[in-house]
Amino acid sequence: MSFAPFDWIDAEARGRAAAGLVRTLRPRGAEPELLDLASNDYLGLTRHPEVIAAAAGAAHRWGAGATGSRLVTGSTALHARLEEELAAFCGFEAALVLSSGYAANLAALTALTGRGSLIASDAGNHASIVDGCRLSRAETAVVPHADPEAFEKALRAHDGRALAVTDSVFSVDGDAAPLPALAEVCRSANAALLVDDAHGLGVLGEGGRGALAAARLAGGDGIVATLTLSKSLGSQGGAVLGPARVIDHLINTARTFIFDTGLAPAAAGGALGALGVLRREPERAARAREVATSLYGRLTAAGLTAVRPDAAVVSVRAPSADAAVRWAADCRAAGMAVGCFRPPSVPDGVSRLRLTARADLTEEQITTAVATVLATAPRQADARVS
Amino acid sequence: MSFAPFDWIDAEARGRAAAGLVRTLRPRGAEPELLDLASNDYLGLTRHPEVIAAAAGAAHRWGAGATGSRLVTGSTALHARLEEELAAFCGFEAALVLSSGYAANLAALTALTGRGSLIASDAGNHASIVDGCRLSRAETAVVPHADPEAFEKALRAHDGRALAVTDSVFSVDGDAAPLPALAEVCRSANAALLVDDAHGLGVLGEGGRGALAAARLAGGDGIVATLTLSKSLGSQGGAVLGPARVIDHLINTARTFIFDTGLAPAAAGGALGALGVLRREPERAARAREVATSLYGRLTAAGLTAVRPDAAVVSVRAPSADAAVRWAADCRAAGMAVGCFRPPSVPDGVSRLRLTARADLTEEQITTAVATVLATAPRQADARVS
Ligand SMILES: Cc1ncc(COP(=O)(O)O)c(C=O)c1O
Ligand SMILES: Cc1ncc(COP(=O)(O)O)c(C=O)c1O
Repeated sequence: MSFAPFDWIDAEARGRAAAGLVRTLRPRGAEPELLDLASNDYLGLTRHPEVIAAAAGAAHRWGAGATGSRLVTGSTALHARLEEELAAFCGFEAALVLSSGYAANLAALTALTGRGSLIASDAGNHASIVDGCRLSRAETAVVPHADPEAFEKALRAHDGRALAVTDSVFSVDGDAAPLPALAEVCRSANAALLVDDAHGLGVLGEGGRGALAAARLAGGDGIVATLTLSKSLGSQGGAVLGPARVIDHLINTARTFIFDTGLAPAAAGGALGALGVLRREPERAARAREVATSLYGRLTAAGLTAVRPDAAVVSVRAPSADAAVRWAADCRAAGMAVGCFRPPSVPDGVSRLRLTARADLTEEQITTAVATVLATAPRQADARVS
Repeated sequence: MSFAPFDWIDAEARGRAAAGLVRTLRPRGAEPELLDLASNDYLGLTRHPEVIAAAAGAAHRWGAGATGSRLVTGSTALHARLEEELAAFCGFEAALVLSSGYAANLAALTALTGRGSLIASDAGNHASIVDGCRLSRAETAVVPHADPEAFEKALRAHDGRALAVTDSVFSVDGDAAPLPALAEVCRSANAALLVDDAHGLGVLGEGGRGALAAARLAGGDGIVATLTLSKSLGSQGGAVLGPARVIDHLINTARTFIFDTGLAPAAAGGALGALGVLRREPERAARAREVATSLYGRLTAAGLTAVRPDAAVVSVRAPSADAAVRWAADCRAAGMAVGCFRPPSVPDGVSRLRLTARADLTEEQITTAVATVLATAPRQADARVS
């Protein structure tokens, strides 16, 4: 037998090519060339001078890296300050910063469940939650989207430790989870509630304090939140927020915390800088929501089908996967970046454009964005094909 | 029933306290207060002015965050350059940068195996490899440490796709994997070989090109490497290196790549800056190994038991878990930070101090380090207790 341990990869690549599903990286330049309705820089803080200065200043003061895991040499006073500020801003007792939102979800799910536990997980949850469920060795019940009764049924069917997990704002469609009802269900089933507020922080709640603050659930006894520092806070990293005993438990047991190098000082500094801007300019949160509502209103008024946005993500239906890909490419050719989601990366089989509203989009840019999406929209004939 | 979904956490915390196993974070200040023999900043580059300038400059030029996943808006020309330079430096066809070394291992293991595959994994492998095996849904055979025959037996017992995975330099004991023999075994079993070079990059091989370059295996057909940018390169992030088709496959299928925000520009810039310094000053790699050898030689000459270092990690036996904890605390009280590993975070039940050699330690600092470890060493009486 000849040595060819990766030949199977070629066959898979041919399959993707035949299905028109090849993904390729398109590195961008330093100067924005496209009108950006694709990034998750919801508050427009990634290039804010104060945020950049805070990131660069942290590299100068603390070095380019954390030098070790958080429990060895990788915890600096900067990390501690970021943890205090995140907890205080969002209304939780304590916080723990990790190297990404992905790592935060893996940490929370593995450390708070385990063999013999049940996780009830919304069918629309982010990939990092799905992976956290797999890694946890808990039994996972995937429940229908945004359905508190389904959560209740799953939780009640289990005898023992249980946790419900949901995105606060679903990353693809931008709709919100029914948090008050879910909290009620968890309370009555004596289950913990883990909410991934990646797309709520900075956008929902008073001054962007997040979905849990908005629902008056932040700081609750059985409530844990995960965050990312890479969207509204314009940086990189993730965090888990919750009761101090939960955070202590993660420090002692969460593998993606214990065995991972601490977040780079520049990323911690950038996130702190962004929190500072947001505290001073709380109107940015409402503005991001306004921009989303405006995009949605104008696009649906012109006949497109979209999901009413609960935060800063506007999901517009495409008649087919091919049409979605062409639509996004046509937007790009017309000078605008938009997200494009289609099977198999969306489990529900629905193809869509994903537009993100940024608080710093001008009225003129919004008008251009709407005009571009409409001008490039698939014709009815294409739509009927779907 | 009262609402108390986290009460079990208190019981676990009490158990840890009773066993003397409580971990707590100790944030450090910006100015080094201790002689550092604990960090993984092997080449002393985290605070190198060029590395810091490259990190800060990248934040200024590209923003504080990548703004989205690599396939949407998170790929910049900076990421592309880092990927080219990493691949060229280490001798591979292509590279893919992720947000951490942890994420890189999860990506490589899940994308290159899967249900029906076999993974043969060294018993001493890093936690991120263990988690990657779990997440992959492949069958995992944990084989005895550094034992090519055991790998061979496991691989031959499986019919179908197979992969062997090993740390190049084991993170706790600092010993090297038998890479040439493992490559031979993989070749004869038609299995892929994945090598985590987290502790080899920057230290092993000519000018720090890594363990695979040192073994003349870099760029081989069935060979894939994972790296971290957070140790020798003084920054944050991870990478997978391999044949171009493998990297394309990861871009299309690796969940911790596709669904994670791109690495922050400052971290990518810092790593590029460090690579630049290392290319210009290749002697840093040999110096790190020399420092390790010197530490080992002097400590064992004085009667301590240690593992002969193959790279920059020196592992010194402690007679018991308690003695190891006291020893590390006494070093700290004497002004020196060292790592301390003990069960349950090491599966083999052996407690040890972990000293890391930095290329920028002076002879005087080495002498101080040796004197401190010896002066604080557990007495023979303690040793006999173990
Ligand atoms: C809902 C959700 N959770 C978690 C993450 C992961 O966060 P990060 O990119 O910081 O790893 C993302 C996106 O990246 C997300 O959309
Ligand atoms: C062998 C090994 N692999 C992977 C990692 C993870 O890399 P990172 O800290 O960049 O996530 C580490 C340490 O952190 C390690 O020691």
